[in-house]
Amino acid sequence: MQLSQRALDIQASPIRKLMPHAIAARKRGLKIYHLNIGQPDIPTPQQMIDAYHGFSDKVLAYGPSQGLDVYRSGLVKYYANCGITLQDHEIIVTTAGSEAITFAMMVVCGVGDEILVPEPFYTNYNGFATMAGIVLKPVTTYAETGFQLPPDDQIEARIGPRTKAIMICNPGNPTGTVYSRDEIFRLAAIAQKHGLFIISDEVYREFVYEGRTHTSILEVPGLEEQAIMVDSVSKRYSACGARIGCIVSHNKALMDATLKFAQARLCPPTVDQLAANACVDLGAEFFEPLIGEYQARRDLVYDALMQIPGAVCVKPQGAFYIIVKLPVQDCEHFVTWLLDEFSIDGETVMGAPAEGFYATPGLGRDEMRLAYVLNEDELRKAMRIFAKGFEAYKQLHP
Amino acid sequence: MQLSQRALDIQASPIRKLMPHAIAARKRGLKIYHLNIGQPDIPTPQQMIDAYHGFSDKVLAYGPSQGLDVYRSGLVKYYANCGITLQDHEIIVTTAGSEAITFAMMVVCGVGDEILVPEPFYTNYNGFATMAGIVLKPVTTYAETGFQLPPDDQIEARIGPRTKAIMICNPGNPTGTVYSRDEIFRLAAIAQKHGLFIISDEVYREFVYEGRTHTSILEVPGLEEQAIMVDSVSKRYSACGARIGCIVSHNKALMDATLKFAQARLCPPTVDQLAANACVDLGAEFFEPLIGEYQARRDLVYDALMQIPGAVCVKPQGAFYIIVKLPVQDCEHFVTWLLDEFSIDGETVMGAPAEGFYATPGLGRDEMRLAYVLNEDELRKAMRIFAKGFEAYKQLHP
Repeated sequence: MQLSQRALDIQASPIRKLMPHAIAARKRGLKIYHLNIGQPDIPTPQQMIDAYHGFSDKVLAYGPSQGLDVYRSGLVKYYANCGITLQDHEIIVTTAGSEAITFAMMVVCGVGDEILVPEPFYTNYNGFATMAGIVLKPVTTYAETGFQLPPDDQIEARIGPRTKAIMICNPGNPTGTVYSRDEIFRLAAIAQKHGLFIISDEVYREFVYEGRTHTSILEVPGLEEQAIMVDSVSKRYSACGARIGCIVSHNKALMDATLKFAQARLCPPTVDQLAANACVDLGAEFFEPLIGEYQARRDLVYDALMQIPGAVCVKPQGAFYIIVKLPVQDCEHFVTWLLDEFSIDGETVMGAPAEGFYATPGLGRDEMRLAYVLNEDELRKAMRIFAKGFEAYKQLHP
Repeated sequence: MQLSQRALDIQASPIRKLMPHAIAARKRGLKIYHLNIGQPDIPTPQQMIDAYHGFSDKVLAYGPSQGLDVYRSGLVKYYANCGITLQDHEIIVTTAGSEAITFAMMVVCGVGDEILVPEPFYTNYNGFATMAGIVLKPVTTYAETGFQLPPDDQIEARIGPRTKAIMICNPGNPTGTVYSRDEIFRLAAIAQKHGLFIISDEVYREFVYEGRTHTSILEVPGLEEQAIMVDSVSKRYSACGARIGCIVSHNKALMDATLKFAQARLCPPTVDQLAANACVDLGAEFFEPLIGEYQARRDLVYDALMQIPGAVCVKPQGAFYIIVKLPVQDCEHFVTWLLDEFSIDGETVMGAPAEGFYATPGLGRDEMRLAYVLNEDELRKAMRIFAKGFEAYKQLHP
């Protein structure tokens, strides 16, 4: 029996595909520091846990396809606190950011249409595009220049007759790059010139360092019909298992069409929406210490990487990832080797090979993404193992 | 800004698209009996609610893409109790049946490929197919003959070079038809003859009446590589808001590919899986009274419909829906009229126009789906309003 072409084409997640090696290592008794996946160790806010405990409906019923009214109103408040003015009907709650991305891609692209995306990008854009029959056209950015956007002409050169949108992740996963207000307006101008949508993945909105401010695509005047924002509570509230996100746009026709996608799958999970809603009032008192914590972790990882001979990386400005280019042939082989053959005092470390974060074949093979989602003690141990592991690996594969 | 063709093409849910009329009616003070949506009034089992209350992890973390180990083991037990022998790795937990259907369609069909499906069918198959660029080829069945399958030659006449699968819903939503063991084996023989997959949506497995037994597609010997089963806890445990389902197959390559789809969206909701897992041991002591309850409701609705002059329907054998063919031009107009212009003592009733349950243009316009998901008292009142409403509507639109 022959499977479909998209089933054969879709990439295995570079974040998760080496998990069998990690499981085998664990079975051998090893402790693994997981820097491969953006699963924070930060406790989920107690009010969110309390919301699960407080669920008292007799029937765990379907909610509206667009999300629970109470939660959409809560989100309007949350966004108002971020300086983004919205109305309830401009928000559709989704099953995590993943579904929001899928809906955004599908509502603007038919089969064979193209989305421009700066690479490296969040690897699962690849999977969603393959499933939906959409082509990602990469605009390559480089570790050496902090993954900043290239000049306009290099971006515009990638736009063709089937290009429907530019997609960005800001703050960037996996790059840690935060686009300045000027950069966002520059992209918006390109979108306006060429009649493109901009899909902006802003799930790391709060995680910007050294007092930077985040610019949402929804803040650009005149871009109302073209701007689509996708979001998620996973990282914001350390609630990756809740699977609650949303898609937001001022474009009414686009939201009407998205609602039809949403109706097909009936609704996002009910109790998890109530749990997410318990967090919408969390403000600076919650985020400031958290941002301080991540900034300290970032510094620790960055400093550790800078000690590795030949490693190239730029200090991330946001999110909680860093891409490091290493003087090795193939980071996937290095990551696998760390799990299969290396350990110090019964411990090893796992990163995510970066090749799957690129659309251009061959790029990123010598790069790895590390997520600084462990506390400083654990991170310090993890980075020590990483450095020693790299040294040993280089002796074996000079 | 132009939206994608699939955004323009996708149908609005016939179950949900008239909700604005219902909301307006409620605002005018009306009570509405909702027979439009399969949202049971049966209380969710207490052990499921308790599982939400008992969640005690510090971090609400990602689970595995294939589902929590504990829940997959629980499902193996559940299926064993249904007479279906499975191993953990033959199950991938999904975000409700919706995602399981999407994965099943995408893993067997590329863009432009076809799936044969007896119509009327679960309306959202339309939406998922449109999103994925898949063509549904209907095999029409009729109210007059209880929506039974046509002879082999009529089914085989619809199979073309791009047909990849036959998709069934058994017990059937919206038809209430339960395929006999012979029917399932007949379909399996067609699939084997033509090298097709069979996707079997079995979310209503337990809801079969008059002591019927349900035959799973997984029970057909020799069909292991071709059989795909999709499932959901929504109806089984009256937990539509939990959004937990699964996709099951013995075909290893197919499950490996499906896991890559699953990895792209990371994981299904964590706490909801734990809640679903609390129900896997529920057996006859839970289902038997429930089935008795639904059977009584079915009889009530069927008998009420039989009193309506010109109504055509066959007593459902399973699930909790009935399709009725009415002597009206357009059931969508009738449903809308019931919401906008009719009421008795401040109450009205809502059904789902059946046209959206067909792929063949024009079919089903004079049919309506009713879900018997209310208790007998409420159903009796709802059916009285329905009958009176029909009488009044016919006088206005003879």
